[in-house]
Amino acid sequence: MITDRLIKSIQDMGAPIVVGLDPRLDQIPEYIKNAHFAEHGRTPQAVAEIFFAFNKKIIDAIHDIVPAVKPQIAMYEQFGGAGLECYFRTIEYAQAKRMFVIGDVKRSDIASTAEAYSEAHLGRLSIDGESREVKTANFITLSPYMGYDNIEPYLENVRKYDKGLFVLVKTSNKSSRDIQDVMMADGKPLYTHVGALVSEWGKPLIGETGYSAIGAVVGATHPEEALALRKALPHTFFLVPGYGAQGGSGKDLAGLWDGDKYGAIVNSSRGITGAYLSKDFKGGERHFDNAAREAALAMKDDLRAFM
Amino acid sequence: MITDRLIKSIQDMGAPIVVGLDPRLDQIPEYIKNAHFAEHGRTPQAVAEIFFAFNKKIIDAIHDIVPAVKPQIAMYEQFGGAGLECYFRTIEYAQAKRMFVIGDVKRSDIASTAEAYSEAHLGRLSIDGESREVKTANFITLSPYMGYDNIEPYLENVRKYDKGLFVLVKTSNKSSRDIQDVMMADGKPLYTHVGALVSEWGKPLIGETGYSAIGAVVGATHPEEALALRKALPHTFFLVPGYGAQGGSGKDLAGLWDGDKYGAIVNSSRGITGAYLSKDFKGGERHFDNAAREAALAMKDDLRAFM
Repeated sequence: MITDRLIKSIQDMGAPIVVGLDPRLDQIPEYIKNAHFAEHGRTPQAVAEIFFAFNKKIIDAIHDIVPAVKPQIAMYEQFGGAGLECYFRTIEYAQAKRMFVIGDVKRSDIASTAEAYSEAHLGRLSIDGESREVKTANFITLSPYMGYDNIEPYLENVRKYDKGLFVLVKTSNKSSRDIQDVMMADGKPLYTHVGALVSEWGKPLIGETGYSAIGAVVGATHPEEALALRKALPHTFFLVPGYGAQGGSGKDLAGLWDGDKYGAIVNSSRGITGAYLSKDFKGGERHFDNAAREAALAMKDDLRAFM
Repeated sequence: MITDRLIKSIQDMGAPIVVGLDPRLDQIPEYIKNAHFAEHGRTPQAVAEIFFAFNKKIIDAIHDIVPAVKPQIAMYEQFGGAGLECYFRTIEYAQAKRMFVIGDVKRSDIASTAEAYSEAHLGRLSIDGESREVKTANFITLSPYMGYDNIEPYLENVRKYDKGLFVLVKTSNKSSRDIQDVMMADGKPLYTHVGALVSEWGKPLIGETGYSAIGAVVGATHPEEALALRKALPHTFFLVPGYGAQGGSGKDLAGLWDGDKYGAIVNSSRGITGAYLSKDFKGGERHFDNAAREAALAMKDDLRAFM
């Protein structure tokens, strides 16, 4: 089961870390950009090649110390069809290096629309009965606002291909309070209700570790809320954004961990992939991959210091 | 302003209708599929050509009687880069025929991610300072769960390119009650709070008609709730799914209308594009476009009978 396997990999590496692959042209070394712009011009195809070259070196540099990557599809989709192909090519490369991939797509919809998204992001492309092998993410993120019939259509592929979901519960952004913190009639904030729903939806999919294939997104920037959710949802694995650039630290996450099962995986994006831009890094842009590896090891130390 | 212009077009045609372009291979005439499969094989490129050929004939058949189309991006994205290109090609074709396009993308995210989505779906592709003219939708749909900082990054392009947003408030699906109907401490269901937020977010963008560029998605399948929202949100234009195949009728929408300003646009997808599959239609698959036109006119009559 996917969450069991992810936990096993986290245990092997001692690193409950997922590196966000959210490439931006202004955070990619000039030497990579220049090479591909020279070949393809300033085209979406050039950007796709640039993003892939960058991702590939990051994956090469961290795949033995970090169990997972999380490409944010918006960054790829921005460059149309070529960008989308780069998203899937990144997934394939990471999986070939034995990394788990969390596709940060936040696609949620109903019925035939959700089935289309599920085929696109968890399944295998099938055209008029002919099936094609396309590498899709191991997990995807979903938004809960439309309710269970936005989740249910994904479960067929979750079961068929051993995939998993992370549903937004309490996100790391400041405005998450606008809706997620609304006080309900029972005196609790809305996200506690959403967390309970996610836990309920995930019960038929609990694996050997006690965690379900349906997890929750819980931000590192709300430590008290995260801790309360941890206690309330013992079978729900957490994907935790908000570490590093957004302000969360290892100390904020103390108390979140479930012993040797960890119970959560923490994301860092620019903190790792953009580490070469820090004034503390003296290696220069051509060694951005070394900087990423050093930053991932430092993050591991920071998290483990508070476990 | 975009909503003013949409209302003007609805007035000119007397039809507050948007036709959903959600192509599925099993609902497209064989003669179209055979032609493109013969040329390209069973490939994503063939599917993209099939979808575009189908959409083009639908648009040709309805563009003088229906003001808008709503492509559901999931149906295109399912076929990778080629599918995504077909989504944008459909937008370009519909706009060339003077139709408004509502991109049903439900993309919502924060900060740089939302900026990437905004550029992809409302803006213009810019690569390393070189801007390209890409036709993007006039409106897109967004999910509210993460709050205002998921909406705010879109507003720059809304202002710059005269675009609009429709934010999910009370959706047409059955499970919308799971979260949207949760009772709040003030004794009202959550969606009323979300509606009030959407209204508030839209205040700086109100046009001559009194409606804002930030509208709300309110399902036809919940007539009482829709009516209450109509009264509570006088400056918020509604996108109304759930008519036809999902069960909503013109009668259910009586009371929703704001006189000659309409105040809402109602979506029908398969009810129009799949009308040729009805046993009442005797024209055969090669006249699917005539069937779509007849169905659109019948929908207009049904809506107008209860205005």
